[in-house]
Formats: sequence, C-alpha cells, structure tokens
Amino acid sequence: MRKPGGMRTQVGIVGAGPAGLLLSHLLARRGVDSVVLEARSRGYVEQRVRAGVLEHPTAQLLREVGVGERMDAQGLRHEGISLRFGDEDHRIDFVDLVGTGIVVYGQQEVVKDLIAARLRDSGVIEFEVADVALHGIETTSPLISYTDATGVARDLHCDVIAGCDGYHGVSRQAYRPQVFERSYPFGWLGVLAKAAPTHDELIYSAADRGFALYSMRSPEVTRLYLQVPPDEDASAWSDAAIWDELAARLAADGFTLNEGPFLERPSVTGMRSMVVEPMRHGRLFLAGDAAHIVPPTGAKGMNLAVADVRVLADALDGFFARGFETGLDEYSATCLRRVWRAEHFSWWMTSMLHRFDPGTESGDAFGRRLQLSQLRYTVSSRAAATSLAENYVGLPFGAKV
Amino acid sequence: MRKPGGMRTQVGIVGAGPAGLLLSHLLARRGVDSVVLEARSRGYVEQRVRAGVLEHPTAQLLREVGVGERMDAQGLRHEGISLRFGDEDHRIDFVDLVGTGIVVYGQQEVVKDLIAARLRDSGVIEFEVADVALHGIETTSPLISYTDATGVARDLHCDVIAGCDGYHGVSRQAYRPQVFERSYPFGWLGVLAKAAPTHDELIYSAADRGFALYSMRSPEVTRLYLQVPPDEDASAWSDAAIWDELAARLAADGFTLNEGPFLERPSVTGMRSMVVEPMRHGRLFLAGDAAHIVPPTGAKGMNLAVADVRVLADALDGFFARGFETGLDEYSATCLRRVWRAEHFSWWMTSMLHRFDPGTESGDAFGRRLQLSQLRYTVSSRAAATSLAENYVGLPFGAKV
Repeated sequence: MRKPGGMRTQVGIVGAGPAGLLLSHLLARRGVDSVVLEARSRGYVEQRVRAGVLEHPTAQLLREVGVGERMDAQGLRHEGISLRFGDEDHRIDFVDLVGTGIVVYGQQEVVKDLIAARLRDSGVIEFEVADVALHGIETTSPLISYTDATGVARDLHCDVIAGCDGYHGVSRQAYRPQVFERSYPFGWLGVLAKAAPTHDELIYSAADRGFALYSMRSPEVTRLYLQVPPDEDASAWSDAAIWDELAARLAADGFTLNEGPFLERPSVTGMRSMVVEPMRHGRLFLAGDAAHIVPPTGAKGMNLAVADVRVLADALDGFFARGFETGLDEYSATCLRRVWRAEHFSWWMTSMLHRFDPGTESGDAFGRRLQLSQLRYTVSSRAAATSLAENYVGLPFGAKV
Repeated sequence: MRKPGGMRTQVGIVGAGPAGLLLSHLLARRGVDSVVLEARSRGYVEQRVRAGVLEHPTAQLLREVGVGERMDAQGLRHEGISLRFGDEDHRIDFVDLVGTGIVVYGQQEVVKDLIAARLRDSGVIEFEVADVALHGIETTSPLISYTDATGVARDLHCDVIAGCDGYHGVSRQAYRPQVFERSYPFGWLGVLAKAAPTHDELIYSAADRGFALYSMRSPEVTRLYLQVPPDEDASAWSDAAIWDELAARLAADGFTLNEGPFLERPSVTGMRSMVVEPMRHGRLFLAGDAAHIVPPTGAKGMNLAVADVRVLADALDGFFARGFETGLDEYSATCLRRVWRAEHFSWWMTSMLHRFDPGTESGDAFGRRLQLSQLRYTVSSRAAATSLAENYVGLPFGAKV
C-alpha cells in the first residue's frame, strides 16, 4: 500500500555511500533538509571494502566539515608512492613535489564516520529500502517512491533528487544521457591479508610478469592486487599461487613480503571507465559512481564522488537560500572537467603500469619500449613526477583543468 | 675495375646528412680522420627540405663547434609554441618554463654550413657515389666499397664505419638488429608557401577537423601541414582546397592566414616510428635516421641525429686517442635512452594532437574526451606544460632519462 501524501524533504538522496552521505552532511550544515534512501543495511555499507586512498583535498574537506577526527587518528598519512620497475624502486615524493600527501583510510571507515555524524545530527537515513523509482524529474516537484524496511510503500516528495546510487543504481537509468565507456583488457585480483605491511607506502610495480600493487589498510592489514585477465576466475588461484605471483612481481632488493591469512575471499574486479554527460537532467543530479567509473589505478573513485557533492552542495545552497539556479545549471560542466581529468589520469596510470597483450599495439615490442621510456622519464624528470604527484594527491577543488 | 689497395681513413662515414657531416666535423676537431661518402650530389643535399627545428642543445653544440654563425644570424629564435584547440590559442612559454627556446633553421641550411666547414678544413666528402657496400664489419679492418662519381670502383679501408645513410641506406641492412616499428594512421600533407608568416611561433592545432601545423622557414616563407590519411594522394588536393582546409583548421579569433604560391609541389609524408637495437654491430655504428625514425610531430628527427653523433664522436675520440673501447661499447645503450624518450614524446604529441578514426579506441567518443582533457591539462598545469617544454626544447645531453 502507498501512504498518501508521504514525506517531504528538499533533497531526496538515493544511496548511502560516500557521495550520498557526505552530500546530506554538507546540506545539513547549510540548513538544507535531505533524506537518504539506501537499499542495503547499515551493517553492509559500513563493512563494504572499496577504495582506500583519500586525496589531500578530500581529507581537508572531511576535516573542515567535522568528520575527519577518526581519519586523522587512524588513517595512514603517506608522503609518496613508489613506482617499481627494472627490479628497483623509484619514489615519487609527493611532499617534496607538491607540498602535501594522501591519507590511506578505507572507504567503509568514511561511511561509518558520515553515518555517525548524520545520526548524531538527527539526519534521516532509511536503510534496506526497496523498489526505488524516480518520478517527475523534469518537473519542479519530483518524487521518489520506494518500499521501506517494514514493507510499507512510500513516496518521498522533494525539490531535487541526488542520484548517488552507483553504477548499478536506478538514478542513471532515469534519463538518457550520453554514455562514454571503455573497458581495459585486465582485471585486478585483490586480496586482503592479515599481515603487517613491510613497506610504509604504496608500491606500483610494472613488472615484466604484469602489474602488482602493494598497499595496506592498517598496521596489521595488507591489501594486494595482481593484474589478471578481465574474466579470470579467482577461485582458480590457490593462496600459495597468489603469494608466489605477488612475490615474483614485487621482487626488489631488500624487499620482503609478509604473508598472512586472507581476510576475505580473493576476487577479481574488471577495470573500466564510464562517464555520463550531462550529469543532470531536470531536477535529478547524479554524483559519484552513478555518473562515472574509473579504473582503480589512479585511486580516484571515492575522491571524485566527494568532489561532485561538494559542487552540488554549493549549488543547492545557492538554490534554496537565494533562488539561484546558476550553480545547478553549471553543476554538470563543472564536475565533468574534474571527472575527465581523473579519467585521463587513471587511463595514463593504467596504461603505463600494466602489461598489454603482446599481440596488441599497446603491448607489442614497440609499445613496451614506450612504456618503459615513460616510466624512466616519470621518475627522472621533476616536471613529469610533479605531474603524477599533483594528479594523485588531487588537484585543488575548483582548479581549471 | 676496383683500384687495388684503395684509400684508408680512420672512420668511413656513409651519408652526408646532418649526422654524417657533423660527425666528420666533430672528429676532425679531435684529430680523427674520416671520409664521407654520399650518393646524392652536393646540390641535392643542400636543397633537400626536411626538418626545421633545432633543440636548444643542438643549437648550442653547433655554436660550440664553430658552425652556428649563420644559424644565429638567419635562424628564427622561438621562445614558445601554441597549442590551439577549442578555437583558442594556449601558449607554451618555453623560456618561462625551462629557461630557453628553440631555433627554427632548415636542415638543409645546417647541411650547407657543415659542408662549407668540412671543405674549408680540407675534409673529404665524396658526392654522387654508387654501389656502396660494407664489408668486414665484424673484423677490426672493415672496408666500404663503392663506385665514385667518375665511375671508378674504390675501396675505403677504415677502422670504424659510421652508418649515417638514413632509413633507406645500406648500413642498417648490414646486420640483423631487432627492429621496432609503428605506423601511425595518418600522413602529413605539407606545403611550402611564399607567404609571410602572420604568427611568430609554431601553432599546433588539434582541430575537430584534424590536425594542422602552422610553421615558417623564414620571414617570407610559411611551412604548413595538414593531417590526411596515410595513403592520401596529394595531387587530389587543389591549391584552393588546401588553403581552405588550413584556414578551417587554424581558425581562431584574430588569426589570419597569408596565402601565397607554393614553392614546391605539395606532398604527403607517412608517419611512422622505427628503432633498431642495438645501434652498433662490430665496427659499424648507426646514427640518425639509419637507426631510428620518429614522426615529425615532436620535431626530433635531426636533433636525435645530432645527439647520436655527439656520443659517437666522444666514443671514437676515446678509442683512437687512448684505445678505450668502453665508449664504443656503451654507444648503443646511451643513445637508445634518448631515442626512446624522443619516440615516446613524439608518440605523445602525435596522439594528443591528431584526430583518430572514430571507429578506433583512440578515436571513439571516450578517446576524444581523453584527448581534450589532456590538452586542457597540458596548458593549465605548470608541471604538464614544463614536461612538454623540456622535451620539445630538448633534454640536456647526457640527461638520464
């Protein structure tokens, strides 16, 4: 049964990931009401392991809006990364090159902090909703219909809808944007191991055997990835085979790899890019993965979501407080500049670090030589290293790029 | 008939292009004898229009070794280039970014200056030789057999042979190196027009209709290029069609294109990359286009030739003066680092500026968005602009890249 009339809010937010939760938090600080609807349970979203690198601007924003305390206490501050090739490490010193670094802090921890902040501030988040559908997005009074956790059909009337429900959500299906897509010809086999990291920073290894990424989530937990074919069956890899391959691809003088039990079943993630244009249709605004997907190589996914909702919160503030539509009108174009910068950077990192099939132009002998020249140049030219660093650490919000 | 015994020299040089002539000049300054053999006439090589951009290190070297006087008097010093896209110019200010610029001075002028210097110094250049063949390159007494301009078969006995005879020469056929090749899916339709340049610096235009390059050879002569399919028939283009297309691709506020009669028949150059490894086999050393071809987009061809022979002259000096073979042993690896840097830079410039077929990954809607993001980033980030500038202006000789 549908409850007549239903609820009302200014901004109906679909999805309680970093985008939706941070948007709700930013809006509340400006006196704009919102309701967040989430298909999963609170427990699920608070445990879901996703990205783990916060750009400097992202970390700064979280601090500024009062949700950075636990991040600063528990997150790992990294002042650089290493590119490993030819069996040697080449450090990209972010602090030296661009004056600041990154914070390694799991996306699920950001989600926990944001949920705690919203609930503390009496924010409304409805978990475990179903049957979410958007209506009237081309009108000035859109609504979101859904079934709540108790099985009751409800309508949420709003002025604006924020679609923060990811690649598989309903929001990006609600209109027909232009969709730009690319699949990369590899996947990442990811493992989370209870093993103390033996290196302080992330290592991106462009080994002849294929790419490997050494990273960590805490002083006790290592996060490791191996380049594999995109359709690889993770269950075909024994634990020992994974450790052997990691050791082979990460081999370098003086480097040892601590092994430990896997904390979750190894899985393979395909690598793709997707961008929708525009990111707005009528009163619906997409943010985060609903509007764009990046391959994980550049560590940009969550950071783009944060950048989107920062722009959207400003635009909505102008709209609700003073009736200005210009911010809303510019939202898509403003976000897309940073989105394409991130897509390009992610493509660039991905192309530089992975082994391509020798039968392809990127992977033939000429292509491999270009890759190696690019790697050598990136670590030997201050300008090139700075270019990597400023993208990785995150360009300032509002930078014209 | 073959003249028994024949001539003797320390270094037999095949090819009187910039590589062979400069090598001969550098060797003479160190007291090492050489003979240059050239299939074409002096008049031909002195008129052959090829590259026209001298890197800063190239120009400096020519000055240092006494062949820079006319270059400094007649060459055009450029302090930057423009990237044109979205109907706007974005200047890359070389002097601001890396402290120095380039010199626009035709390759045939460099050739004239070097021939004049060699003849002044009693250097031996035999023009219009035929039937050049290399013998005994795996021995310590190789020889070059050839037929001289008068039809007499001769042998040139030497200690070392320098193969500076370009892509179509015999030198690179004398052994079986590994050959790395790539063809780019476009050609350049080039025209040389008697028309005063209307802009002081080169303009690289990444127009939606395709790439165009605006350049000049002198205050009276404009050199212009249009991206075309690689197999394009230049004769299918009327003069008017060429000017129309140039005007369309170079359109920008306040920009006018001076037209004028073509000084040579328009022609199409295919764009490809080629590298041989190693660049040395026994007593044969390849330099310049015999060892590597770059697409013209990065203006690196002649500059790489100069860089090669600079390394080779040092190595040969050590060898003849003091018996050191280390320089000769390291020649190939030393040169190849700079060669692959130039190949990568040329590929990068080419990929960023040309329109790819929309049916390809590089040219699909996603690829085009990446291109545009890269262009915007290159002109808006000082680090990225510096990276372009330092490669274009030329990395210092000996830089570890």
